[in-house]
Amino acid sequence: MSGNTFGKIFRVTTWGESHGKAVGCVVDGCPSGLDISEADIQRELDRRRPGGELASKRMEEDRVHILSGVFEGKTTGTPISLLVYNKDTISEHYVKIKDTPRPGHADLTYWLKYGHRDWRGGGRASARETVARVAAGAIAKKLLLNFGVNVIGYAVEICGIGWNQSVKISDEKDYLKLYEFSERSPVRVPDFETSSRIIEKIKQLAEEGDSAGGIAEIVVLNPPAGLGEPVFGKLSAVLSMAVMSVPAVKGVEIGAGFGVARMLGSENNDPIILKDGKICLETNNCGGILGGISTGNPIVLRVAIKPTPSISKPQKTIDLKTMEETEIRIHGRHDTCIVPRAIPVLEAMVAITIVDFMLLHGMIPRRLISESY
Amino acid sequence: MSGNTFGKIFRVTTWGESHGKAVGCVVDGCPSGLDISEADIQRELDRRRPGGELASKRMEEDRVHILSGVFEGKTTGTPISLLVYNKDTISEHYVKIKDTPRPGHADLTYWLKYGHRDWRGGGRASARETVARVAAGAIAKKLLLNFGVNVIGYAVEICGIGWNQSVKISDEKDYLKLYEFSERSPVRVPDFETSSRIIEKIKQLAEEGDSAGGIAEIVVLNPPAGLGEPVFGKLSAVLSMAVMSVPAVKGVEIGAGFGVARMLGSENNDPIILKDGKICLETNNCGGILGGISTGNPIVLRVAIKPTPSISKPQKTIDLKTMEETEIRIHGRHDTCIVPRAIPVLEAMVAITIVDFMLLHGMIPRRLISESY
Amino acid sequence: MSGNTFGKIFRVTTWGESHGKAVGCVVDGCPSGLDISEADIQRELDRRRPGGELASKRMEEDRVHILSGVFEGKTTGTPISLLVYNKDTISEHYVKIKDTPRPGHADLTYWLKYGHRDWRGGGRASARETVARVAAGAIAKKLLLNFGVNVIGYAVEICGIGWNQSVKISDEKDYLKLYEFSERSPVRVPDFETSSRIIEKIKQLAEEGDSAGGIAEIVVLNPPAGLGEPVFGKLSAVLSMAVMSVPAVKGVEIGAGFGVARMLGSENNDPIILKDGKICLETNNCGGILGGISTGNPIVLRVAIKPTPSISKPQKTIDLKTMEETEIRIHGRHDTCIVPRAIPVLEAMVAITIVDFMLLHGMIPRRLISESY
Amino acid sequence: MSGNTFGKIFRVTTWGESHGKAVGCVVDGCPSGLDISEADIQRELDRRRPGGELASKRMEEDRVHILSGVFEGKTTGTPISLLVYNKDTISEHYVKIKDTPRPGHADLTYWLKYGHRDWRGGGRASARETVARVAAGAIAKKLLLNFGVNVIGYAVEICGIGWNQSVKISDEKDYLKLYEFSERSPVRVPDFETSSRIIEKIKQLAEEGDSAGGIAEIVVLNPPAGLGEPVFGKLSAVLSMAVMSVPAVKGVEIGAGFGVARMLGSENNDPIILKDGKICLETNNCGGILGGISTGNPIVLRVAIKPTPSISKPQKTIDLKTMEETEIRIHGRHDTCIVPRAIPVLEAMVAITIVDFMLLHGMIPRRLISESY
Repeated sequence: MSGNTFGKIFRVTTWGESHGKAVGCVVDGCPSGLDISEADIQRELDRRRPGGELASKRMEEDRVHILSGVFEGKTTGTPISLLVYNKDTISEHYVKIKDTPRPGHADLTYWLKYGHRDWRGGGRASARETVARVAAGAIAKKLLLNFGVNVIGYAVEICGIGWNQSVKISDEKDYLKLYEFSERSPVRVPDFETSSRIIEKIKQLAEEGDSAGGIAEIVVLNPPAGLGEPVFGKLSAVLSMAVMSVPAVKGVEIGAGFGVARMLGSENNDPIILKDGKICLETNNCGGILGGISTGNPIVLRVAIKPTPSISKPQKTIDLKTMEETEIRIHGRHDTCIVPRAIPVLEAMVAITIVDFMLLHGMIPRRLISESY
Repeated sequence: MSGNTFGKIFRVTTWGESHGKAVGCVVDGCPSGLDISEADIQRELDRRRPGGELASKRMEEDRVHILSGVFEGKTTGTPISLLVYNKDTISEHYVKIKDTPRPGHADLTYWLKYGHRDWRGGGRASARETVARVAAGAIAKKLLLNFGVNVIGYAVEICGIGWNQSVKISDEKDYLKLYEFSERSPVRVPDFETSSRIIEKIKQLAEEGDSAGGIAEIVVLNPPAGLGEPVFGKLSAVLSMAVMSVPAVKGVEIGAGFGVARMLGSENNDPIILKDGKICLETNNCGGILGGISTGNPIVLRVAIKPTPSISKPQKTIDLKTMEETEIRIHGRHDTCIVPRAIPVLEAMVAITIVDFMLLHGMIPRRLISESY
Repeated sequence: MSGNTFGKIFRVTTWGESHGKAVGCVVDGCPSGLDISEADIQRELDRRRPGGELASKRMEEDRVHILSGVFEGKTTGTPISLLVYNKDTISEHYVKIKDTPRPGHADLTYWLKYGHRDWRGGGRASARETVARVAAGAIAKKLLLNFGVNVIGYAVEICGIGWNQSVKISDEKDYLKLYEFSERSPVRVPDFETSSRIIEKIKQLAEEGDSAGGIAEIVVLNPPAGLGEPVFGKLSAVLSMAVMSVPAVKGVEIGAGFGVARMLGSENNDPIILKDGKICLETNNCGGILGGISTGNPIVLRVAIKPTPSISKPQKTIDLKTMEETEIRIHGRHDTCIVPRAIPVLEAMVAITIVDFMLLHGMIPRRLISESY
Repeated sequence: MSGNTFGKIFRVTTWGESHGKAVGCVVDGCPSGLDISEADIQRELDRRRPGGELASKRMEEDRVHILSGVFEGKTTGTPISLLVYNKDTISEHYVKIKDTPRPGHADLTYWLKYGHRDWRGGGRASARETVARVAAGAIAKKLLLNFGVNVIGYAVEICGIGWNQSVKISDEKDYLKLYEFSERSPVRVPDFETSSRIIEKIKQLAEEGDSAGGIAEIVVLNPPAGLGEPVFGKLSAVLSMAVMSVPAVKGVEIGAGFGVARMLGSENNDPIILKDGKICLETNNCGGILGGISTGNPIVLRVAIKPTPSISKPQKTIDLKTMEETEIRIHGRHDTCIVPRAIPVLEAMVAITIVDFMLLHGMIPRRLISESY
């Protein structure tokens, strides 16, 4: 779980720059015998793709190629190499700002750290890298569905316009309804009226040359109990790492999250009860995780996503060649709000984490077919 | 970074149960030539120890023993084994509740996961385990100070009583003042008036048999720029994992954190300016981390800590032997609010993370003495 | 698998110096529900202990203490801390040679690498460290026996006196007989006549102030097929790392090993046949591993162990203080030949590796009891 | 260091099957600022390519494509994705033997382990995978040369015909001469007369439908002292793992290796002397490694490589569909002796290991350019 590789058994290594030849990943440790096709992966990539009037105008087909690890439609247990070519790159936009780091972007820190960087389109720090995460996540999600586990996500707040949050949901079906509704909303908000207000606000900000952030909620439905490796490899800790590694994420909370600071113990503790003869928690303030181990209840994470740093309003920066203060206005093709497109990426990271723990605990076997052949 | 080991080069492995013979850790990968004594470690352990009228009445001396890795007062580069005996354990309190998992605790999930557990005092899931983290963190902190880096922490909100937060602080000296003040407050709040109100509230909750949570802020002063390994080993991601692994933590945010959901891009982006001829950020909404890499500004994390789950009010639970619903009242010696004692633990985890990255980047050498001998 | 930690799921971290307070280890990732006692571990430690007229005169009781991870006689799935005090240390022998690195020892390289070292009794580089490996290995071996897997070892050559090697053995029972015989030989050679000749030779070398090396064979009986993670985590690769990490080991070979350089393909390839209706290899030149994956046949490794570097004959060295050439004669309590005592250590490393792979592949569950409690 | 990823900082992940679309790798953790071109990598690939009358007739161009991580001719510190298309694949040869595992190959164990496998050309277990290792190794070797370290290799024995071995070489220049000579020999043997005899023997075996193995020697010239992380991450241990992961390798020894079993301590210990005022070992029986740490002398490894398992002589096997015994004769395009082509692969693995340790120890910086830009 370091550098560009994530996971212990199901290990995803991503590579590629925004305006390089391609982006891609290697998925190692996937069990053998899983049915997987380029179409399975494409579906998830299409959920992440720019499109519609609210998103970046960069038009990428994002067609995925499986180069290894799949034979006759099934995984072989060997590394799966996935590749997506970059096609619609216009690097000219970036030539003139290559010496003036964009505020809120990684330009400055990459320059400080590496000394030499691909400045075209943000290079490696571009959200374009998340194409590879979503492709890998598509495999993880399909594998999880084989075991009845579903990872979903939607937005609960954008530009300060919140939707009445999900804390009181107790039934997994209600989560699924939210998700299905959100998938039809251009901003992935599971409520029509809130969705409309947010769309209006985003259009207005786009005109003003500004941008907005928000909060996404990711839920794991029907997770097994017992996931997590205390004391450092707690499920909560590894999930936090997973989502915090996604570009623009500045906060993560589980269950009641920051709300716990204002709750009493008697309010926050989830009573342990029986339901149909099975041990169950009456509420889910713990977000499905106690002591770093999953309870079997839905796992609920909320993630804070910052406003797109690329804005056309003038901003203060410096010229790295002359070391003088200057001003920058960013033109190009950017999303005013990245939250809707970040959701499939967050789902991917959560799905990869859950798959990895299930493999680590022997809950998913290393081969899915009982007979050889 | 899995199970009970944290870190890649500076690797900390902790062990021990609340009412077992001892708790301890092995610190592997510490550079050779660091001056370290039991007294250096004891100082940090004493900051975490229970004490005062607000804390648990369990009276542990918490005396640390260095069993290896230090010779003639200096580290040798070999693993440092640290051990603290458990002395004041009263397991009788736990006999009668060993079959009734305490709500909000890890009792239920350990039972589900492992099948067999040490139920005395919470066993491995007890916050007693954090003694070992603080001991290891003391070495990390001393090492960081050798390189001018200081990790501090204090509470910014307890039981909903907030202290005017630190976002506008631009000078490292101001952070140090906050820290010094907080160290004199029984609740580690850097403001006298707020501190008093919180103490009143905690006393009241203790009488009512309830408990409170809060928010801690951890700051890394004078960090080097360039820490972090995108795209998965981002500094923000690994720090989140580090603090989320601490018992009772349910949320983490960096810089403006969840606040970014309500900010515009033009508000959130930190302008890049020159200060005394050096590149600098005018504000620190990014919390010292951009693109997962440190900027050189103070690194600012906030952490949500839930109310102590041990409360004497009656709570619903089940009897695991009879599988019937029942009620539990927890007696024993518990902190009404764990936030003040959690702070040294959080500092330890942050210090270990920073040391590990500095070693990984070659910013701290593997040996601290130039001459052999 | 770095520094002082070995393993991915079943992770062993050792610590301690030869003349420090104690040596020990933390075994993390052991499944819950395994019956384990100090006596179980002691049995293996006693196999490694010095004793008899041929071995070092250092008299250590080597009594092991379990400090955590075991409750009511069963493992809890939490880290197991094991500790053995050093008692019979005579550091005076080492004071006068602390500045003159002993040829063949790690004195020089530790000095070069760390700058500061515990020179008493070889410090961390002493074979005393292997006490901790054997203690951890005892747990691994007991766990393997629960799954019908047995790890054994014996010497096949000492001071150039070879015993007719085991290559033609096809039955697991024959391996067990060899092992049982070797356990009754002071030099762990499974043949009475060879054993006697070797003992004579060792006595003679002891008188001459010289020392001898040899070759040990380690065999895994009844291993599951399918162990190994190509292409880098091949079973052969990880086993090689495991045994090469043992002090004094300078070579490792699997199956026909270096002999393959003189064999034709038609001789070396093991024919695939049916035996009692099951797929089987007619010979075992591959040593139970093909393509880095176990075949299910006995896994056979041979390990070259160098002569004890501590000899009383005069040797050339330099004085690190004066940087002048000088001569050293090593007095103290050393084994003339370390091979017999190295065998339990090699078995331990092999057992830990096999357990780790079985856990990684889900062949050993993370909990051994089906019912909770 | 697991599955298909090798290394801790300089991490190589390989992917691809023999008859799939392509083979490739991702090199993560390479310092920024290294000059690297496709031509640099091609040179090493060409050393490994089949060719000449002694080798496989499969004619692959093996042209490498750099897809990421290099910008304007220099590495950026981000993952380097390398890809080589498979072109000259004739899978028909394999259709008829897909159900009859080839003795000495991984067919059987992949079938047992994964249940589903790409049987074309050996799939993932084919030595074709080593193209990716050599490509990654080319980067490692170039990086090492920047720091004066050179990794070379040659054959010392093939089909039992040995060349007077290198043990007495004390001067690095002599090693270089051997290497240069061997590069002009079709069998990479650094002696004209031996080379000729081996070529004759290989031709004869090819006619007979048989094959031969041998021993390769890999040497690291001018390595820094202090490489290695005892007690488990010893340089000797990690190097053994690295080379044992190469297809067909069945043994590894360091320095005097298995010869130590027949040496006395007084013969095997390398005297410590002064040479031009510097500490030095008079002999190099330790192969440049003492206590798992490099001494600064040449690091010398010998590796046993088995005869190519693909032979046209009839061999016993079973039909996995009918589960009956049968006979197989392998036709196709195979090397009669793989040793010469294995040498660049072994060099690559050793170079990657040395680079990784140097990065881990801070001996190679994470960026190679002092100025940003």
